[in-house]
Amino acid sequence: MDKVYQTVENLHKQVRFFLLGSLDREGFPNIKVVLPVKERISLKAIYFSTNTSSLHVAQYRAKPQAAVYFFDGLAFKGVMLKGTMEVLEDAKTKAHFWNKGDVVYYPLGASDPDYCILRFTPTSGRYYHNFKSIDFTL
Amino acid sequence: MDKVYQTVENLHKQVRFFLLGSLDREGFPNIKVVLPVKERISLKAIYFSTNTSSLHVAQYRAKPQAAVYFFDGLAFKGVMLKGTMEVLEDAKTKAHFWNKGDVVYYPLGASDPDYCILRFTPTSGRYYHNFKSIDFTL
Repeated sequence: MDKVYQTVENLHKQVRFFLLGSLDREGFPNIKVVLPVKERISLKAIYFSTNTSSLHVAQYRAKPQAAVYFFDGLAFKGVMLKGTMEVLEDAKTKAHFWNKGDVVYYPLGASDPDYCILRFTPTSGRYYHNFKSIDFTL
Repeated sequence: MDKVYQTVENLHKQVRFFLLGSLDREGFPNIKVVLPVKERISLKAIYFSTNTSSLHVAQYRAKPQAAVYFFDGLAFKGVMLKGTMEVLEDAKTKAHFWNKGDVVYYPLGASDPDYCILRFTPTSGRYYHNFKSIDFTL
């Protein structure tokens, strides 16, 4: 169990892309690829920066049920995390995760109202590797 | 509209991986990466081969609400399709999509009871490119 956790924690620091799962108004699953923030401290709280006006932010405000998925397609490894997503818009959090390059997406800088932070808190996970799945809790 | 459809149809023939969205018992979104079948004819019916015993097959049998997502991370292109998923287990369909190499996953061949086909039928989609989203129906 601890070994699986460590493997998954390491993989989450290596992958280039994360897939976020949300629920739309009709209760259908939705998926979107996102880039992670630079700071990847722990699986237990995963942060993403995104547009406040985006569809998935509206979905998470209405229904916080969420999935975060990441994978290494060449090594046939995948991790599915289940949990909840919060939308953070306070100045301190936004400044903390701000990177200079973000100005391309958010011209007004860290205080841009269209810039916000998503915080994902997982409760359980599933790690796929070599045709096997291992479930774990967080 | 037709141009978007053609762009999305072309992208779906090029990508290496597809992400499937499903709903678990508690109504949370789930995500899993899958390899497509070789035959990619049309966006209007997308097929995947998978293990009959897998968790997402059980989820689709209970709740057919589904998402199919694919993306080109380098070109910042992503496609989200919303629709329903069917689990097909008839011999004709299984034989049609069978590839020799599948024997690695399904030792009993095309009639392996743990081999089945998923058919996704989308009703609408969203194409992301250059920080813009375009919605379309199917």
